[in-house]
Amino acid sequence: MTSIFKVVIASPALDKLVQPLSRDYTVIRGWLAQDPAIYLDAGVVVAAGDAPLDTQLLAMMPALRLVVCATRGYDGIDVDRLAAAGIAFSHVENVNEQDVADHALGTMIMHRRALLEGDRLVRGGRWERAAELPNRSFSNARVGIVGLGRIGRAVANRASAMRMSVSWWGPREKPARWPRAGSLIELARESDYLVVAARLHHNVGLVSREVLDALGPTGYLVNVSRGRLVNEDALIEALRDGRLGGAALDVFEQEPTPAARWDGVPNTFLTPHSSGKTAEAFHEMSKQVGTALARFFGTISPESESLNEDVAGPRRAGARGAR
Amino acid sequence: MTSIFKVVIASPALDKLVQPLSRDYTVIRGWLAQDPAIYLDAGVVVAAGDAPLDTQLLAMMPALRLVVCATRGYDGIDVDRLAAAGIAFSHVENVNEQDVADHALGTMIMHRRALLEGDRLVRGGRWERAAELPNRSFSNARVGIVGLGRIGRAVANRASAMRMSVSWWGPREKPARWPRAGSLIELARESDYLVVAARLHHNVGLVSREVLDALGPTGYLVNVSRGRLVNEDALIEALRDGRLGGAALDVFEQEPTPAARWDGVPNTFLTPHSSGKTAEAFHEMSKQVGTALARFFGTISPESESLNEDVAGPRRAGARGAR
Repeated sequence: MTSIFKVVIASPALDKLVQPLSRDYTVIRGWLAQDPAIYLDAGVVVAAGDAPLDTQLLAMMPALRLVVCATRGYDGIDVDRLAAAGIAFSHVENVNEQDVADHALGTMIMHRRALLEGDRLVRGGRWERAAELPNRSFSNARVGIVGLGRIGRAVANRASAMRMSVSWWGPREKPARWPRAGSLIELARESDYLVVAARLHHNVGLVSREVLDALGPTGYLVNVSRGRLVNEDALIEALRDGRLGGAALDVFEQEPTPAARWDGVPNTFLTPHSSGKTAEAFHEMSKQVGTALARFFGTISPESESLNEDVAGPRRAGARGAR
Repeated sequence: MTSIFKVVIASPALDKLVQPLSRDYTVIRGWLAQDPAIYLDAGVVVAAGDAPLDTQLLAMMPALRLVVCATRGYDGIDVDRLAAAGIAFSHVENVNEQDVADHALGTMIMHRRALLEGDRLVRGGRWERAAELPNRSFSNARVGIVGLGRIGRAVANRASAMRMSVSWWGPREKPARWPRAGSLIELARESDYLVVAARLHHNVGLVSREVLDALGPTGYLVNVSRGRLVNEDALIEALRDGRLGGAALDVFEQEPTPAARWDGVPNTFLTPHSSGKTAEAFHEMSKQVGTALARFFGTISPESESLNEDVAGPRRAGARGAR
């Protein structure tokens, strides 16, 4: 239907939102060439926080009043600039942290229990070589978590349930039932698995060549946060040289990552930033974006709004939250 | 070294035990052709409980006094017959149940989060199709556990930590914090994942065609117990017909399972009975077998024996325990 309420979707990664939002709004795909006139009276942008928000697009929208970020992280969005322009900002909450942690755990099990190698043995008629599989228990395995936010804690809880010894590091002390390492280098040195769950803000290149070398030839890196947290060139070099044992990467410096970049890089498991993109997380994200839009357009009453206390509403941009 | 204490290893699956046991005993590989005279004064057999214990081998050992089973399950061993012959029997305890549960969990995560498909997309340069991945959350996923023994409980604990809804079925009510289904068929009907963790004794073919049909086209079977618990022909047919969603199998009717048997059977993940065979589990198993042998041969004192209270010692065959 055509609605007088206009919503601009900023990124093709959110294309799935077009259909559900079109029930109530006129939805514009902002990444497609459009008649500039269409943007003149559009008051809302929905953005994906892990990609830079197109400033040219924003410049075409003089009536812009609200940016809704459909991801919890919003490192692609200059919230200070929005605040200076008097534009409100909101982002979704608690959508997929548990899913991301499940994904991280799955890649660790695949690696430690040599699951893919096992499947190849059976299908190749080489069952009798099963005793040679590098099949290790999680008892006594050590996981180091970089960044003890919601994802980091969810990974730590699962790793504890699997008898792993858990440590973490972050720039600030936090209440936690797991010990904090003295430094990131120390955490890497004392871990079999290093799980990157930090926010990107102020942390570009945090997992440096030195950190990778501290993790070492029997260490395994899992990144489910942001690609640019890791020095990806140094990572590839360490994997090629055998100075790092392996890596499961769900995020990359550039996304999509070029397939050729990983040709012949050994001991890698690569997924397309899918760790948080379950059907259920999309459903929840879609619901929260819908609520933020309904509040902005005034299409929900205070009574129905009170039913959504657990849902993040708009707040003034510039307030500091997680990125 | 050559020792007057002779130990016969019954199965090539235990070949790794030969080296550590040879430090204290004369170890004979019972599956190799040997001069029959070598068995005449051998008092001990070490067997793998998941393979039939060679009765011809036993018949060659008139001095046999003890069978040590190196696995917790011992469905391949006729303990009644051993008891009738006055032969003692012992088996190891608590060696790898947690590892087996970790393996089961890993296969469930691989399936539900479409991990292998994701890796194929990235490497194939088809990242943009990530939105089509059948990527589902574990929130609201239902796991049904067949047999709530040590492995079943370990799976249930992990599944709970991942927000799954857990049910179980076994022939007898047991104290548990998860509900017991009214029947196996009912459990299968109400599960997204059916994890087989029952003992084989009295349960051959338990997971029948009817159970597989109750699990259905969106259901996923995980078997980490014994292959013969499942009607494997019916399983293959259900997978080929799309009447069952998929299966992760670590155990098979016949082991090694012929690779050709699984050619073109869709949605399967196959491992070579490796779920419990970690380096750490082998170390613990080897330690417990060593303790059982030392007790039998009287080469440990009562004082040092008391240090091993948590280790299963020999007991008279015929006593009923887990199989």
